[in-house]
Amino acid sequence: MSYTPIAYNPYDFANRRHIGPTPEEMAAMLAELGCDSLDQLIGQTIPADLRQSDPLTWAPLSEGELLAKLRAVGAKNKVMTSLIGQGYYGTVTPPAIQRNIFENPAWYTAYTPYQPEIAQGRLEALLNFQTMVADLTGLPVANASLLDESTACAEAMVMAQRVAKSKATAFFIDKNCHPQNIAVMQTRAAPLGIDLIIDDPDKLEADKVFGAIFQYPGTYGDLRDFTGAVAALHDARAIAIMATDLLALTMIREPGAIGADIAVGSAQRFGVPMGYGGPHAAFIACADAYKRSLPGRLVGVSVDARGNKAYRLSLQTREQHIRREKATSNVCTAQALLAVMASMYAVFHGPKGLRAIAERVHFLTQRLYRALRAAGAHVVVKEFFDTITVDVGVGQAGILAAARAEGLNLRKIGTSHVGISLDETTDEQVLMRVLRAFGIEGVPPHRGDLGFSDAFIRASDYLTHPIFDMNRAETEMMRYMRRLADRDLALDRAMIPLGSCTMKLNAAAEMMPLSWPEFASLHPFCPPDQAQGYAEAISDLKAKLCEITGYDAMSMQPNSGAQGEYAGLLTIQAYHRARGQGHRDICLIPMSAHGTNPASAQMCGMQVVVVKSSANGDVDLDDFREKAAKAGDRLAACMITYPSTHGVFEETVREVCHITHDHGGQVYIDGANLNAMVGLVKPGEIGGDVSHLNLHKTFAIPHGGGGPGMGPIGVKAHLAPFLPGHPEIGGAEGPVSAAPYGSASILLISWAYCLMMGGPGLTQATRVAILNANYIAARLSGSYDILFMGNKGRIAHECILDTRPFAEAGITVDDIAKRLIDNGFHAPTMSWPVSGTLMVEPTESENKAEIDRFVTALLSIREEIRAVETGEIDAENNPLKHAPHTVEDLIADWNRPYSREQGCFPPASFRGDKYWPPVGRVDNVYGDRNLVCTCPPVESYAEAAQ
Amino acid sequence: MSYTPIAYNPYDFANRRHIGPTPEEMAAMLAELGCDSLDQLIGQTIPADLRQSDPLTWAPLSEGELLAKLRAVGAKNKVMTSLIGQGYYGTVTPPAIQRNIFENPAWYTAYTPYQPEIAQGRLEALLNFQTMVADLTGLPVANASLLDESTACAEAMVMAQRVAKSKATAFFIDKNCHPQNIAVMQTRAAPLGIDLIIDDPDKLEADKVFGAIFQYPGTYGDLRDFTGAVAALHDARAIAIMATDLLALTMIREPGAIGADIAVGSAQRFGVPMGYGGPHAAFIACADAYKRSLPGRLVGVSVDARGNKAYRLSLQTREQHIRREKATSNVCTAQALLAVMASMYAVFHGPKGLRAIAERVHFLTQRLYRALRAAGAHVVVKEFFDTITVDVGVGQAGILAAARAEGLNLRKIGTSHVGISLDETTDEQVLMRVLRAFGIEGVPPHRGDLGFSDAFIRASDYLTHPIFDMNRAETEMMRYMRRLADRDLALDRAMIPLGSCTMKLNAAAEMMPLSWPEFASLHPFCPPDQAQGYAEAISDLKAKLCEITGYDAMSMQPNSGAQGEYAGLLTIQAYHRARGQGHRDICLIPMSAHGTNPASAQMCGMQVVVVKSSANGDVDLDDFREKAAKAGDRLAACMITYPSTHGVFEETVREVCHITHDHGGQVYIDGANLNAMVGLVKPGEIGGDVSHLNLHKTFAIPHGGGGPGMGPIGVKAHLAPFLPGHPEIGGAEGPVSAAPYGSASILLISWAYCLMMGGPGLTQATRVAILNANYIAARLSGSYDILFMGNKGRIAHECILDTRPFAEAGITVDDIAKRLIDNGFHAPTMSWPVSGTLMVEPTESENKAEIDRFVTALLSIREEIRAVETGEIDAENNPLKHAPHTVEDLIADWNRPYSREQGCFPPASFRGDKYWPPVGRVDNVYGDRNLVCTCPPVESYAEAAQ
Repeated sequence: MSYTPIAYNPYDFANRRHIGPTPEEMAAMLAELGCDSLDQLIGQTIPADLRQSDPLTWAPLSEGELLAKLRAVGAKNKVMTSLIGQGYYGTVTPPAIQRNIFENPAWYTAYTPYQPEIAQGRLEALLNFQTMVADLTGLPVANASLLDESTACAEAMVMAQRVAKSKATAFFIDKNCHPQNIAVMQTRAAPLGIDLIIDDPDKLEADKVFGAIFQYPGTYGDLRDFTGAVAALHDARAIAIMATDLLALTMIREPGAIGADIAVGSAQRFGVPMGYGGPHAAFIACADAYKRSLPGRLVGVSVDARGNKAYRLSLQTREQHIRREKATSNVCTAQALLAVMASMYAVFHGPKGLRAIAERVHFLTQRLYRALRAAGAHVVVKEFFDTITVDVGVGQAGILAAARAEGLNLRKIGTSHVGISLDETTDEQVLMRVLRAFGIEGVPPHRGDLGFSDAFIRASDYLTHPIFDMNRAETEMMRYMRRLADRDLALDRAMIPLGSCTMKLNAAAEMMPLSWPEFASLHPFCPPDQAQGYAEAISDLKAKLCEITGYDAMSMQPNSGAQGEYAGLLTIQAYHRARGQGHRDICLIPMSAHGTNPASAQMCGMQVVVVKSSANGDVDLDDFREKAAKAGDRLAACMITYPSTHGVFEETVREVCHITHDHGGQVYIDGANLNAMVGLVKPGEIGGDVSHLNLHKTFAIPHGGGGPGMGPIGVKAHLAPFLPGHPEIGGAEGPVSAAPYGSASILLISWAYCLMMGGPGLTQATRVAILNANYIAARLSGSYDILFMGNKGRIAHECILDTRPFAEAGITVDDIAKRLIDNGFHAPTMSWPVSGTLMVEPTESENKAEIDRFVTALLSIREEIRAVETGEIDAENNPLKHAPHTVEDLIADWNRPYSREQGCFPPASFRGDKYWPPVGRVDNVYGDRNLVCTCPPVESYAEAAQ
Repeated sequence: MSYTPIAYNPYDFANRRHIGPTPEEMAAMLAELGCDSLDQLIGQTIPADLRQSDPLTWAPLSEGELLAKLRAVGAKNKVMTSLIGQGYYGTVTPPAIQRNIFENPAWYTAYTPYQPEIAQGRLEALLNFQTMVADLTGLPVANASLLDESTACAEAMVMAQRVAKSKATAFFIDKNCHPQNIAVMQTRAAPLGIDLIIDDPDKLEADKVFGAIFQYPGTYGDLRDFTGAVAALHDARAIAIMATDLLALTMIREPGAIGADIAVGSAQRFGVPMGYGGPHAAFIACADAYKRSLPGRLVGVSVDARGNKAYRLSLQTREQHIRREKATSNVCTAQALLAVMASMYAVFHGPKGLRAIAERVHFLTQRLYRALRAAGAHVVVKEFFDTITVDVGVGQAGILAAARAEGLNLRKIGTSHVGISLDETTDEQVLMRVLRAFGIEGVPPHRGDLGFSDAFIRASDYLTHPIFDMNRAETEMMRYMRRLADRDLALDRAMIPLGSCTMKLNAAAEMMPLSWPEFASLHPFCPPDQAQGYAEAISDLKAKLCEITGYDAMSMQPNSGAQGEYAGLLTIQAYHRARGQGHRDICLIPMSAHGTNPASAQMCGMQVVVVKSSANGDVDLDDFREKAAKAGDRLAACMITYPSTHGVFEETVREVCHITHDHGGQVYIDGANLNAMVGLVKPGEIGGDVSHLNLHKTFAIPHGGGGPGMGPIGVKAHLAPFLPGHPEIGGAEGPVSAAPYGSASILLISWAYCLMMGGPGLTQATRVAILNANYIAARLSGSYDILFMGNKGRIAHECILDTRPFAEAGITVDDIAKRLIDNGFHAPTMSWPVSGTLMVEPTESENKAEIDRFVTALLSIREEIRAVETGEIDAENNPLKHAPHTVEDLIADWNRPYSREQGCFPPASFRGDKYWPPVGRVDNVYGDRNLVCTCPPVESYAEAAQ
């Protein structure tokens, strides 16, 4: 007997773990497609002349090798105690929240809650977030979070411009705002023609501005009374905005009480690690009058088909994908996972706990203040919460160095000042180290006197809703988080076949380093020598993304795809300007574009010209040529998506690029569909000058139930000098995000993904994504019309199912989506890019069995539709219209012309492990008409239960 | 306006997180009890003269402080590459398994699957484990795991003695067994009078023994052919046992093919970190003829009320709690969580992946062997799998030191040999370092030749069941783990009010360090200077446990409560022997004792004399006195539980101790109920000489779905010299566990618990546990008879509800237990310590709301019983008899005299978040009659689904 070694690599992450179908499954799928090989299919799908010349070749790492490498890289970061403040603070993530939310795929793999019936858990958590923000700011309405505080400032500024009755064109910025807030507002204001006045609040001339923003407390620590300024603004019919701090607001007077119209800030210090910049949840709240102008997502309360209370996203019509050419904001995401964490932190601590934490921080700051004053230091703040600034003159370098020797980072302000911000993690030992850095021994005793005058004392209650007064024993908290998680359907239970959203595997190994202090605890503005590990990771990720895309440089700053678009267009504008072509202001955008495209263009002050689609869904080349010619030397850019949002590799893409370039324009290729190109086609090689990459789509960052995301941009060399800069790291251009590398910590996920996949693995993932999509199209073809295919009858990585033919029978795309829930699936993307369609993207991570289950679901739904069409079943009383079915339906009397079993267990549902939606179909109209965006009072729960 | 600081410590772990009821809730509960204060209640509960004099005083840490401290302590451990082998190997825990099982409370907070309807998930995973072990060993039946490999060896030896037809009294041990295996068998053999022959297998005289054990491969690496030895044993009607290695068995001939009757070993290297000794799952498998003699738990397949396939624990009657005085094993637990992990590792890799891993390890070993031989080293093994031994003569110290300089631990064997065991984590770099330690540069090329002869090549397939051939993409694995987890009801969803099992909170912060490499990656036999962090943690935990119990010394070795009992009695025996009183052999045990007590006594060769209970449930003092007197100078010990298993602080405990001591006996106080004493009463102060502590009950180690556990023993000073020793760390006595500190890594959980609670917090936890129990008793009193109370009408931390009065109406304790599932609860302990009762222990972690929900459930069940009693509802067709209700019930026709709503939504169930058991009531008799203990073939699933 002889021994035959096995040919099998158990550590091949790409092919064993990340890519769903096995080789045998792929063979079966290719057979269904009538293809001999995957190569053949790819050849039929992607025009040969677009294929990249050189394959991606870097070698993959196993999971074990990856984690070892990440530990080694992490060790190059130096974890110091950062007292830099400036919007980022040390915080204690409650371990129960870390484990049960941040490290739990039930939370982090969820999609945005557009399908409310399967998202009641995170909708409740986000409603808690909104209630928390509304209560603490003293304003009645808050949204479900924004990307970062600086972006929130810019959004507030633009919102003020929209809602102010003042006709002034200038906007006032308190010079005590955090520098990155000022910088991002400057970036945003310029293309919109907003004049900025940056000065001391005492210098405010209210009648000259449509609005003003004040930082409260100020970036250097000072607490100032803005009551007069706010009143003056109101007299001038201008809008008062306060950028503020949630922890401080537990002790000091809230913006609502001061009269502010809008409040913004970051919820980072509510249990979310600094992570070298993010991700964190920023917030925005406003007075009732302006609630319909709030940017971003707003969770509201409605009712379901049985009249039971149900949560949903409200006022979705406000979103940019509906506003399109009229949009002034391109915000289309939130930082859901981080908002959930922050809200749970508030639930965990409750109002008393938050107040106690704030007091602890404040009284320690007070003692620091006293000690410094007693030693003769020149402390320049008079009233403060957690931050003080000291004028140390020529001693600055020495004190900063002495602090570093104590393991501390203080804030360097100018050349003569030092800032110190204390936080939840500060204790007497830290205080002692700070004082030692100033040559002071010992810490003064606790006295309990305030560092601010009585006028600043908050008078009102907050977090009075019972949810913030729940029993906060960990057992109860754990069960609450589990209960909410169980209400939702995320990737850890079923495929989420969302077209254009690329809901692929978020591997456990990729997520792990985010919990390590070496990555989690770094302040975004810490000295670079403390972030060498991050530098290495970011630099290698940039290099790999450049290789993948064919671009020459990459900015990691944009915090979302939409922000990437905006940053990319700003880069193009700066380039034109530098060449004396600043007058170029027209942006050509095809009809089928993502709604964010025109919104981003308008944020840059560009004029959007829409290009038609031809009958087959491609860009209408004649129309494009005509409109480009018409734009002439006003042509700034075109924005196209490749492969197209119709899911097709258009053969004309090079021509589109040529036309644009011929007219002096730049080509922006939206990277939303990059998952169909990695390793096969490089946008930078087919004519693109700039693209954003959705790392949360193509590069495995989880969607987090509606954020975080990252949208770095790649550019050709000629644009590199014009990429976003940042006050902390320099650069000619202004920043688009609060932190130099955006949500830096989640870049590790994408890096880990690239490392474990290797170049060939990434390429194979693309090929299998295309295979999976074409297999679905082939299986469904005949039962559903598949819109848009390439000229060889192939689609790219997603397919569009036409449901409009069912309209005659009264069946809508909604009915199909909800019936898919009964089958245990999240619905595909609805009515985009074509109304009345479903866009399906399986990604490479789904295996054949799950895809077959999905096909079974859609085929059985087709039969149900047929029964309606033929009149076999009632047009209103049928499984489609009653979908999704709940346990309540089962319990109640059953007066339906189909059985309970048919209703609840359609063919694709998991019989023994069925997911039950906690509510029936949610009434959207009711919710928008009766807008409730904070936790409803308890009585209303009792009513609903009746 | 002036500012009033808040009096609230948000970081008070004990009172805000661990202890469930808020102060307000406690006040309400005390009012229900008619008590003015908690002090008063405690005064009524615990006899004053038993109260400890000095309170526990150490200060608590917050969660943040704890994690910082643990990081600092962890940094004192030195993570080296350990190639020591000897049963412990480096392994890669698949990140998806780490995240979704090891770090997921749905898995780790579950209880032992005694209630199969709410445990189908882990029962399936354990059945996978059994199938994996059966397949790899080539034996048809395997159990659901044992404590460690050495214990498994000892269990196999005792099992051989029971089943062998040979009348010989000796047992043969291959001298190539791991030293700790030999040592633990020696410990076990001595009191049972088994003569051990430890020698080279060539010296086996089969007719002189009832059984023999061989290590395969041997501890020094050698592969030997045991075919002849096994045949000789069978000729002599003796039993052949093989201790073996699952990874090796993917390549080498399996024990079943060699003819072995029993196989044992450890599944550690299947993805479970070494953890400085554990916990890991050991296994035992046997020939079909002996399956009813297998120790430990056995998962089997049965059917539910609808005839659908359902898993359950089989042959529970074999367990010691039934065998009682006839027991020869006290095993009553498994290492469920670790067995689940190991089984998932096998599912994750499948047979091909396991084989590929084995080959990788083996071929690297082969290259090492060749390089050493080529360099003239004296390699003493000829045929090997992953381990080789080199005779290095006087060079031993130098080579070990050179290896350490390379970051490697090699095995020191005697004074002249060095052992090297490679593992899954070994790569060429490691090989290069090993060779450098021998002064050899470079690694020989891969050739693919085997290190063993063809006769050893495995001929049979394994893991052919489809579960091991599932699509192993991480997405699919993640969903499989989620699906199984969702089938189970664990602490993360509801109270588990198990009397005597103390299902308290297992806090996230306590669990976190277990995942850190600084704690997870240490070999139990690494040089002590590499384990200084562990030394500090264990030493401080010992000191705290001594302070809590009033004992003077502590052994951390026992891996379970039962093993603690056994170790404690061995300690007593050694003490008697040392004083020339070795003849003392009688152990007095009250009728109400835990079943493990008599079993443990018998394992020590003691004669058990049972003492009666008096009418009130206490120890019958007269009977005790009489039996102690009768035993006279044969009295070795008494074993009592305090507070008693009846849940009462017996006032006579001191008297019982006095009597025992007067007769020269030692007092063993079973620590199962220590949660009622911590901070209030010290067993070492009321007369105990030795106690075991169930760290998985009182000290927050999670139950893991049926293991791990830890049962360290505390002793008074006079017994300290007789505590268990270990070959690796010395000591006069033999070991009871494979590793010196048992499952060392989970000691961190208990340490973290003690640190965060602080002395006062622990004391308060005890007081609240007593409050919670008395509150339940008070609420249920009148509806249920509460058995056994102290003379002031109070119980301790648990209460016993008598269900025997319902027998007349045909309602059994089982009916109530299953109906509790409908209410969303795990049943309390059933029919123990009194048949026909339920023993309820809420622990301090449950808050009033959850306890009230439980009371509501039991009161509503009482009303349902009343309806049967009065004839209002049919005696068979009622909600109790049909419990638990499943979705299948809802879907099916409903021919019942109560509504679907009444059936599925009894008053305590969570309406919107109901837990649905995946199967109906499981048929126990069917399962035992048709014993199936490996995964059933796929066709049978299809049948069941029909």
